[in-house]
Amino acid sequence: MLERIRIVLIGTSHPGNIGATARAMHNMGLGDLALVAPRCQPLTSESISRASGADHIVHAAPVVETLEEAVADCTLAVGASARSRTLPWPMITPRALGERLPTELAGSESRVALVFGREDSGLTNAELQRCHAHVHIPTNSDFSSLNLAAAVQVLAYECRLAWLEADSSDAGQEDEPHQPLASHGELEGYFAHLERTLITIGFHDPALPRQLMARLRRFTLRARPERMELNILRGILTATEKSAGGSTPEGGRQRDNRQA
Amino acid sequence: MLERIRIVLIGTSHPGNIGATARAMHNMGLGDLALVAPRCQPLTSESISRASGADHIVHAAPVVETLEEAVADCTLAVGASARSRTLPWPMITPRALGERLPTELAGSESRVALVFGREDSGLTNAELQRCHAHVHIPTNSDFSSLNLAAAVQVLAYECRLAWLEADSSDAGQEDEPHQPLASHGELEGYFAHLERTLITIGFHDPALPRQLMARLRRFTLRARPERMELNILRGILTATEKSAGGSTPEGGRQRDNRQA
Repeated sequence: MLERIRIVLIGTSHPGNIGATARAMHNMGLGDLALVAPRCQPLTSESISRASGADHIVHAAPVVETLEEAVADCTLAVGASARSRTLPWPMITPRALGERLPTELAGSESRVALVFGREDSGLTNAELQRCHAHVHIPTNSDFSSLNLAAAVQVLAYECRLAWLEADSSDAGQEDEPHQPLASHGELEGYFAHLERTLITIGFHDPALPRQLMARLRRFTLRARPERMELNILRGILTATEKSAGGSTPEGGRQRDNRQA
Repeated sequence: MLERIRIVLIGTSHPGNIGATARAMHNMGLGDLALVAPRCQPLTSESISRASGADHIVHAAPVVETLEEAVADCTLAVGASARSRTLPWPMITPRALGERLPTELAGSESRVALVFGREDSGLTNAELQRCHAHVHIPTNSDFSSLNLAAAVQVLAYECRLAWLEADSSDAGQEDEPHQPLASHGELEGYFAHLERTLITIGFHDPALPRQLMARLRRFTLRARPERMELNILRGILTATEKSAGGSTPEGGRQRDNRQA
């Protein structure tokens, strides 16, 4: 289970925090680290020193440009969030996150990403809206900003406890037969298609977004779509586009009302 | 309760770990630090930097020569121990420690010390035997030595959770503010509208239903739509219908592709 949990750090500024994150991960049995657009060299003498023997995790960590790339194959992405945002999003505690993991990771294709933001400013709203849920580590309200590696430590600790617990109580859960869930990449493909279609039918104006896409994201992610369900939804979008202005699959017929 | 929990560091070598410990403590609402025979200057630029605004805790920390002095007024001392020792001792998990705290700290005179050893060698057997119990943070057996401040972070986090739990006889979880959910009738109205629209755009043939509506129902109901979300979805359906065959809201455009 633990090998299918990925820690994603976005825009990290301090190599020491990357090294300390690797140490915290390895201590708890996690090994999959991804770095999104780090604002520092990941491998320095300081990061290696703070990794204290876990620098192989930093060596192996892919460096990518966007959150999407880092979580494309993940079936659940949870963003660490310090504060409540204007748009409410499913918010869970670290403990509740741990309790969900055995179920989330029951399928062999499933993979969970825990996403951490910048030392100074955390995750952006756009990044948070790419996550199914947010996890908030309860802190002193007067002094709420945890060190990055400390936050990773707390969540990795909860992952390990959940794993130990699941391992010891391996009794058959009341498992529904699992359909494969849509991956993050498939979901993003769907949201892009949805936005295009809503523009085509005149329902959405990107110049006046009114949080429309954010609300549709939140709704859709809450349902945890299966891959097959997402295929149906994309089929509906394709049919909507064709009906609004494109050509039919049977070919031949053309409508020229794209601009109308 | 939290103000009567003391963190005791014995023989610390790295000022950065003292600063990071202060930060971890303050994040979790702890403030009482004692330093036993530190092997470094507690206040350096590095410790202040790592404290990140919590250095008042280091400034206020008494420096004493022995564990006895540091815990003299404590009613319970718990030693953090990485490994099982030759002499069996009551061993508790961090979670069990948290669960014990409200009872342990019920009396106004009571005080609990959490004792942490040296970065390189932990607590001595003599020190461990001065503790009522030992607490072991579960770790990867191949890589078990936590950073000192990370270990403090985990135990301080468990202290805070225990305090929050004890405090919240009001069952008010950190719930998102709830929007009213769609009623059954509203949902049925939506599903009827959805089915009409899917027929209009040629995606659904009621003569060959292929469980399409059942799948869309299951997906939608799983998300427990709010009323506002359902209104958005109905707005999309209306725009889809107009785009497919009716007139646009701006008027004028007509497409005759209903049968196509």
